[in-house]
Amino acid sequence: MAAPAVPGAPPPVVLDAMGGDHGPAETVPGALLAARDHGVRVRLVGRADELRRELRRHGADGLDCVNGLGGAGGAGGGVEVLHAADAVPMAERGAGAAARTESSLMVGCEAARREGAAFVSAGSTGAVVTSAVRVLGRREGVPRPALAVALPSLTGTTVLLDAGATADPTAEMVARHAVLGTEYARRVLGVADPSVGLLSIGAEPGKGDRLARDAARLLPGLPVRFHGNVEGHDVLTGTVDVVVTDGFTGNVALKTIEGCVRTTLALVARAGIADPARLREVARLYAAETHGGAALLGLTGTVVVAHGSSRRAAIARACVMARALAADEPIAPPGEPDIAPAHVIPAPAHERPAHLA
Amino acid sequence: MAAPAVPGAPPPVVLDAMGGDHGPAETVPGALLAARDHGVRVRLVGRADELRRELRRHGADGLDCVNGLGGAGGAGGGVEVLHAADAVPMAERGAGAAARTESSLMVGCEAARREGAAFVSAGSTGAVVTSAVRVLGRREGVPRPALAVALPSLTGTTVLLDAGATADPTAEMVARHAVLGTEYARRVLGVADPSVGLLSIGAEPGKGDRLARDAARLLPGLPVRFHGNVEGHDVLTGTVDVVVTDGFTGNVALKTIEGCVRTTLALVARAGIADPARLREVARLYAAETHGGAALLGLTGTVVVAHGSSRRAAIARACVMARALAADEPIAPPGEPDIAPAHVIPAPAHERPAHLA
Repeated sequence: MAAPAVPGAPPPVVLDAMGGDHGPAETVPGALLAARDHGVRVRLVGRADELRRELRRHGADGLDCVNGLGGAGGAGGGVEVLHAADAVPMAERGAGAAARTESSLMVGCEAARREGAAFVSAGSTGAVVTSAVRVLGRREGVPRPALAVALPSLTGTTVLLDAGATADPTAEMVARHAVLGTEYARRVLGVADPSVGLLSIGAEPGKGDRLARDAARLLPGLPVRFHGNVEGHDVLTGTVDVVVTDGFTGNVALKTIEGCVRTTLALVARAGIADPARLREVARLYAAETHGGAALLGLTGTVVVAHGSSRRAAIARACVMARALAADEPIAPPGEPDIAPAHVIPAPAHERPAHLA
Repeated sequence: MAAPAVPGAPPPVVLDAMGGDHGPAETVPGALLAARDHGVRVRLVGRADELRRELRRHGADGLDCVNGLGGAGGAGGGVEVLHAADAVPMAERGAGAAARTESSLMVGCEAARREGAAFVSAGSTGAVVTSAVRVLGRREGVPRPALAVALPSLTGTTVLLDAGATADPTAEMVARHAVLGTEYARRVLGVADPSVGLLSIGAEPGKGDRLARDAARLLPGLPVRFHGNVEGHDVLTGTVDVVVTDGFTGNVALKTIEGCVRTTLALVARAGIADPARLREVARLYAAETHGGAALLGLTGTVVVAHGSSRRAAIARACVMARALAADEPIAPPGEPDIAPAHVIPAPAHERPAHLA
């Protein structure tokens, strides 16, 4: 069912076109943006008739749209369609989703596995994680995958994981996230010897809930530079390069940050003490359109989980991020130099604002 | 050992003068600020010689400083000293702290109990909670106390609890927090029929870790207006009046907010797009000096837990807040009208900026 690889061409980014709160209405234009502006070849997976209708609405006839029986991307990128008859609803739980083998999620994972391609979905996190584990499989020594997000901090970038892949992990799983996070910070952020903090409710060892206390005892035995416990306020101040926690706490922390940035900037705007347009530049540092999504670490394959509420720009960014991860290139949010956190890794040249190029 | 009540005078606020990262160097001037600027009578509990030395350093001879054998506050406020030979170190765990019966924490709790006075401590949260439960006792039907903080949201104020009293609660305990939070929002924020959200990682019922899923099943059976699950970004947007969670997640969320507000404003300041002095007014909305501390709910008595890092202004604010809570008066952060969240309850007249009085 999947398109055979074109000899010589890099594999496409496989996109679950039915995933997310908005489905094809945003994934299709997102794929077109990624293809047109960033040269990413994207394979849309979903109901072919819906996807083609959506493509036509965007005047996409000029692009390389084939029916999924033969990808012909070429250097300029392009968008292809791979049919999948079923779609997983956002409310579906993990096991239920993995049982829907004809869904865009499962068909997409399978296509990504066969071609060694990166996979992107804005579907329900639980459904994406379960399906990706089922189809792609875990890497050796990884008990559970973890979702990692790269957040701009005051001094650079902090990797936070698990941002929601496993809500009820064991202490061993949480501790192993430190190894995945260290690897990610090295590879993706270029930090030579990343420090790792365990998110807890006091800096002293022994502070925390049972899970954090148990994980704290395991971490010194792992091949990571363990700093000790960190607290909520350390996540964005750059105290450590990597913050590990369970998927429940990490997801709450991530979404709290997203909401808090918006609220703080709204209060500044309401006070009338700053130019709203310039405030939006700060907001963009933490917006889904900037960071693209979370990388699902610990699988034999590249998977990017985009926010369920992603609009086209966020979908495009997730595709760009997935291509970079699959190619082992650094990723980073593009930022204006005057507002960007220090030492942010410059985005690839084609993504940078004209005056920086 | 405790001072007998002066007939006719309201009981003082009892302050653990040895608690917090800075001890008497900040608690003593904090008490003096509360007394001088807000007319709060404060009883300092700790090593009498140290406290008297500190009082003299601040020229406090003119105030009502007696040796703890007879409080003589009067209407103008005043600061008294009650000797306690021992002090609980910040790293001490709960049970260890409660065993130190001669500590400022335990002697202070005991004095507060005997006089029906409010108690304030910036000591280790675990130590304060365990000692307060031991001495003051829980109210009927409350399995565990909860720390509640009132956070400015986009539309008013949100009560978040538990912010750290119990790191490993049962689902029953988390659900019962909803009752305490509802009561607090009614009494302190004046919300007639507060809505309650359960902090989780998805709005749909069934999303969350085991604890949250179990608590979600119990909440509809309690006498509260249960809205359902809320997520991290809802904490500051005013989706609900009360957000309940376990003490680990709540503490991480609270400290994440504190750090995120600082980081966001630092990025705005670094961009040079707003007046730093005006930005500090926004920062103040979330600073310890403004909210004063967390109320420990569910005990037969008023207890305010101040931030361990509290400086004098935050200590003073905690004393003012404790007096208001003990007298059943509304509390709220004072805010400039142009930056304050909507519907913030005005602070008492003596705390408001001159141009608002």
